[in-house]
Amino acid sequence: MKRQNVRTLSLVVTTFTYLLVGAAVFDSLESSTEEKRVFALNEIRDDLKVKYNITNEDYQWIEQMVIENTPHKAGPQWKFAGAFYFATVVLAMIGYGHSTPSTIGGKAFCMLYAAIGIPLGIVMFQSIGERLNKGASIVISNMKKLLKFKKAEATEINLMMATTVLSSIIMTTGAAVFSKYEGWTYFDAFYYCFITLTTIGFGDYVALQNDHALQEKPGYMALSVVFILFGLAVVASSINILVLRFMTMQAEEMQREDTELGP
Amino acid sequence: MKRQNVRTLSLVVTTFTYLLVGAAVFDSLESSTEEKRVFALNEIRDDLKVKYNITNEDYQWIEQMVIENTPHKAGPQWKFAGAFYFATVVLAMIGYGHSTPSTIGGKAFCMLYAAIGIPLGIVMFQSIGERLNKGASIVISNMKKLLKFKKAEATEINLMMATTVLSSIIMTTGAAVFSKYEGWTYFDAFYYCFITLTTIGFGDYVALQNDHALQEKPGYMALSVVFILFGLAVVASSINILVLRFMTMQAEEMQREDTELGP
Ligand SMILES: [K+]
Ligand SMILES: [K+]
Repeated sequence: MKRQNVRTLSLVVTTFTYLLVGAAVFDSLESSTEEKRVFALNEIRDDLKVKYNITNEDYQWIEQMVIENTPHKAGPQWKFAGAFYFATVVLAMIGYGHSTPSTIGGKAFCMLYAAIGIPLGIVMFQSIGERLNKGASIVISNMKKLLKFKKAEATEINLMMATTVLSSIIMTTGAAVFSKYEGWTYFDAFYYCFITLTTIGFGDYVALQNDHALQEKPGYMALSVVFILFGLAVVASSINILVLRFMTMQAEEMQREDTELGP
Repeated sequence: MKRQNVRTLSLVVTTFTYLLVGAAVFDSLESSTEEKRVFALNEIRDDLKVKYNITNEDYQWIEQMVIENTPHKAGPQWKFAGAFYFATVVLAMIGYGHSTPSTIGGKAFCMLYAAIGIPLGIVMFQSIGERLNKGASIVISNMKKLLKFKKAEATEINLMMATTVLSSIIMTTGAAVFSKYEGWTYFDAFYYCFITLTTIGFGDYVALQNDHALQEKPGYMALSVVFILFGLAVVASSINILVLRFMTMQAEEMQREDTELGP
């Protein structure tokens, strides 16, 4: 088999193994808590249903209504500021899902918007990331000159360390800010920053969903958007290095293969 | 100003303009529906509160309980199959948020898991994507030979068209399958596939959350995971072309600049 097919196949096998291991760990960490929680929640539900003598049909109404109403408790989600936040979350592929289009027109436009916005976003993040890398390599090589290193040029490993340090600073600072504004524990705020900047965006913690912040705290709103966009650019700069590395590796391998197989 | 800084800056300006335009459109599409909906929901809530004479405190309990209980209505989310689905959703950066870790241990492990899993996933998707591109270019160039084109080599535009066609096939087929299994309209199922394969993953529609599918329909479970992983690889192959293009452009420009400015 060709070397590159072997590599792709081993990556697939590694990934599946990694998923199986992850599943086992998540199962052991969360399953028992989940069981207890479901039991407790059902008890509270049954108690309340008995206390108020709520019919099953009405209870289903209540359930549906509470779920639909949740996003709106934070104030209107689609007035301009909220819609801007939503557009940012789509373009950055975070997709918290704290609020999603409910009309057919909204869904259709959302797909069109993402189809253009995501490539635009990727190219912008990559471009900022590349500029950051360039800036970092200049700073590093000047520092090395000052410290009288033999080779003043910034190596790839230097750059990786620099982006890691910068990412950590952004995450820890971001965590402090969001913990203050949202009333989350520092750990939860850090988890929020991490889940946001990796673009996973679960939506279990979402900034700007308290005290009508979207409409009434424009400063905090701007800060959050800048945090997302700048933070993602820094993360993109690390991924930039990683992906570039991998592609260079691949290109080199293909050249080697062509030379081996070629006429 | 340096040419590359100009480009980065214009990308930032373009992106912000795009976000502003998007916000305006989303506002006009969704705001009025949202207003009506909130009004209707609040009326139902008030009616039910009066009908059953529910205290405000108890109503808050009900709200919190319904929200916490929602993910568990689909059956246990953290038993092995569910945990595997969750791990896939993290590694692929989709992050539906239909179920998220609630323990500190679970959250901490989730961050560690993502920190390793996401780069692994990216490299795997890129690798499959690159193999797909290679395969497509062989097929295209053979077709061109058969049709007696002057230049048989597959161009970049050919490849882009091929990945677009393949993506469309995957989305439309996926939409048909999910519409059948989940009972969604075809449009909603297509929206689900699109939001999933762009890794936005709002979580407003999530597969495998009906009829205890995670535990009781292993075939459908496997199909969904393969759909996600293979679909993302195809999307990655398009992005592969796009990002490679952009990076080549950048590298060429840097070389040109170095020549212009160099000694
Ligand atoms: K996401
Ligand atoms: K998401």
